[in-house]
Amino acid sequence: MQSEAKFIYNYKIYLENEGMPLFTNRLYFDTSDAKKTQILWDKISAQYSSKAVGYYDLPDSGEKLLLDIEAWREGLKNLQNVVVIGVGGSSLGAKALYSMLFHEKKSGTPNLRFLENIDPITIKKTLHDIGLEDSLFLLVSKSGTTLDTISIAKIVMVHFGIFPNDKNFANHFAAVTDEGSALDKFANEYGLKSFFIPKNVGGRFSVLSAAGVVPLTLCGIDTVKLLQGGAKCKEDFFARKLDTLLEKALIYTTKGAQNINVLFSYSDIFREFNAWYVQLWAESLGKKRGDERVGLTPVGLIGAIDQHSFLQLIMEGPKDKSVTFIRVEKMADDTPIPDLSLKYIEKADIKTGISAATLLNEQALATIKSIVNEGVLTDEITLERADAFCAGYLIYYFELLTSLCGLSLEIDAYGQPGVEIGKKILLDKLKR
Amino acid sequence: MQSEAKFIYNYKIYLENEGMPLFTNRLYFDTSDAKKTQILWDKISAQYSSKAVGYYDLPDSGEKLLLDIEAWREGLKNLQNVVVIGVGGSSLGAKALYSMLFHEKKSGTPNLRFLENIDPITIKKTLHDIGLEDSLFLLVSKSGTTLDTISIAKIVMVHFGIFPNDKNFANHFAAVTDEGSALDKFANEYGLKSFFIPKNVGGRFSVLSAAGVVPLTLCGIDTVKLLQGGAKCKEDFFARKLDTLLEKALIYTTKGAQNINVLFSYSDIFREFNAWYVQLWAESLGKKRGDERVGLTPVGLIGAIDQHSFLQLIMEGPKDKSVTFIRVEKMADDTPIPDLSLKYIEKADIKTGISAATLLNEQALATIKSIVNEGVLTDEITLERADAFCAGYLIYYFELLTSLCGLSLEIDAYGQPGVEIGKKILLDKLKR
Repeated sequence: MQSEAKFIYNYKIYLENEGMPLFTNRLYFDTSDAKKTQILWDKISAQYSSKAVGYYDLPDSGEKLLLDIEAWREGLKNLQNVVVIGVGGSSLGAKALYSMLFHEKKSGTPNLRFLENIDPITIKKTLHDIGLEDSLFLLVSKSGTTLDTISIAKIVMVHFGIFPNDKNFANHFAAVTDEGSALDKFANEYGLKSFFIPKNVGGRFSVLSAAGVVPLTLCGIDTVKLLQGGAKCKEDFFARKLDTLLEKALIYTTKGAQNINVLFSYSDIFREFNAWYVQLWAESLGKKRGDERVGLTPVGLIGAIDQHSFLQLIMEGPKDKSVTFIRVEKMADDTPIPDLSLKYIEKADIKTGISAATLLNEQALATIKSIVNEGVLTDEITLERADAFCAGYLIYYFELLTSLCGLSLEIDAYGQPGVEIGKKILLDKLKR
Repeated sequence: MQSEAKFIYNYKIYLENEGMPLFTNRLYFDTSDAKKTQILWDKISAQYSSKAVGYYDLPDSGEKLLLDIEAWREGLKNLQNVVVIGVGGSSLGAKALYSMLFHEKKSGTPNLRFLENIDPITIKKTLHDIGLEDSLFLLVSKSGTTLDTISIAKIVMVHFGIFPNDKNFANHFAAVTDEGSALDKFANEYGLKSFFIPKNVGGRFSVLSAAGVVPLTLCGIDTVKLLQGGAKCKEDFFARKLDTLLEKALIYTTKGAQNINVLFSYSDIFREFNAWYVQLWAESLGKKRGDERVGLTPVGLIGAIDQHSFLQLIMEGPKDKSVTFIRVEKMADDTPIPDLSLKYIEKADIKTGISAATLLNEQALATIKSIVNEGVLTDEITLERADAFCAGYLIYYFELLTSLCGLSLEIDAYGQPGVEIGKKILLDKLKR
């Protein structure tokens, strides 16, 4: 057993409400470099003011969207299933939030499902589980021509025998896309409802736009609170200069520092959130800068499970990793660990009165302590509750962190030029 | 568009059957170094002969286990749910294979579920979905005292009001553990059926032992074929010296080479297999070697979905990654992409007669081509079918590759000393 860690720490509570900190971020390191922090702050302030990057303002522009969804929802009768047909930025955000907030979903609202992959096994299974009458298919694609998405939509149409000219087509299909896209024109032609993603909002930054808000609202997630959480994070950062974010971005992008950034999220509800983070981070920060290849590699882990997996590599492997822990102070559905002692297995007995959530949190804290002891770059995000408000804050926090890392690395965080080559090879081969 | 890649390639089919290659591994690189290959071969041959590492022989020792399971199964009436309570090596293997082979599960067999995490939300949801009468809880733990596993078991007992002294306890609980462990003694005391994991088989290498074979057999997976696949890989390697494996291990463990090893698996059925690979790789190969920290970092991706995510980082980010593609030539439940053209979205039209599986495979091939063009270290595994035989082969292939990398790095691939510190911190705090 090593000696107690000396925590070099930088403790901030930047949101207080109901007397409790709703979102806490502890950095177990100290990086304060006032000059560099100021330069990065100036860069993001300039980007924000330029209005070239649209996601910054999404939390404030939700009111009209929410009214539009509510009005449209009135006409959707007996809806049991909303199926998002979309991939990448068009599905990951909604999936992340639906999984994270499923336990507080309004009762009696439809199930949210996803058709993301042109995988015959998944498609068959999903279509087998639903009927047409009570299902709505939401085609989500910024460009409106994503090959996988449109191909899956065609399979769905043939499976249920419903086609654009049919009079009930608009009861079962709707679109979320860029205004004026091919999909928007298609929607107009056949009378489908369509919602727009602002043109200056990239797919992976679009979860607080119609791409996430439409399916989540339909399926009983409190998107009003979600957007309020995003707005609060925006305010904390842009109006109060939340310096933990600036400091994290600076240390992550220091040359020769940890280039693998692990998100260790304690609860199964974060599994899809991790996947959202992986896309956001990898696709935004893996870029050529002139002749140089730069990038930070994201890894998503779930605690306590992955203490029995990847943790060994963090503890004893190369020091090329930072780790951000996410944990929830007050978990839903908490249950006590019974005060039972099983004969011969007394070694696994613990103190009376510990709940499952407490044990999960204590596992996180013990793991934090052990890796800080090893000198691994570590920070900890604690949500008071896994609710829509905290989720919105968390989403916006990671979007900001991504933008800050991109600015610090002097790359364009908002394009994805590297994936076009494979698409071209594919289309050259399969084009009709 | 870059010019056509020059494929430096090393094409091997090492299993032929029914006139088709069932398992193909193409290396898009050339590393032949006869001397190093021979040294590594000698090392693994010595380890194999020593019998210190038990997983090598698991595929040959399944017959007795399978008979034992069959005999016991007779007495389990009306079984609808088998719930594995276990974590890490005690759950990931069974989960990987159940997901990969679900489409060929025998009909009328129980569902396989997992309680891996001391997460109150997941536990509540799982227990809500099942009843006691038709459920069997399989406690899987090598040591028999894993804190999470035993705590979850206690919650299950209290939830259903069933305890060790009850006369029907042995109808609903069974154990998979090391012979003589605390859990084995508990099982003996209360008349539970128990199966043993050989002492010289580590948890993350245990999927072809009782840890995987018991739940999979009960739930309708063809474990006879699974073990045959493993045995075939064993034979191909140890009797025929499968040199792609030796060459891959050598190039992965060359100093200064790619230290992030991406597994890019094309089909949703591989999601849990990726998680199994991540544990196997990270926990086996992240080790201190004297004062030096060594290790290879695994990343699991799903195609075609993650072409819209992590691919950008592979294409343009630092050249610190190798990529292994897995794809399935003939997929179950294949479906044609309808020969429909949607007005305004004609850009997404493809040739007539392409199926979903073909499009998925063509996406894999286009992606392989584009990353080989970028000079990324790439290889490709093609399964003719995703069946139990190929799955067994695949499992054994990755176990061998892990052992070879461990031997080449001169570390002990079979322990996990780094995770003990956190466990001790936790127990010091929570011990009764």
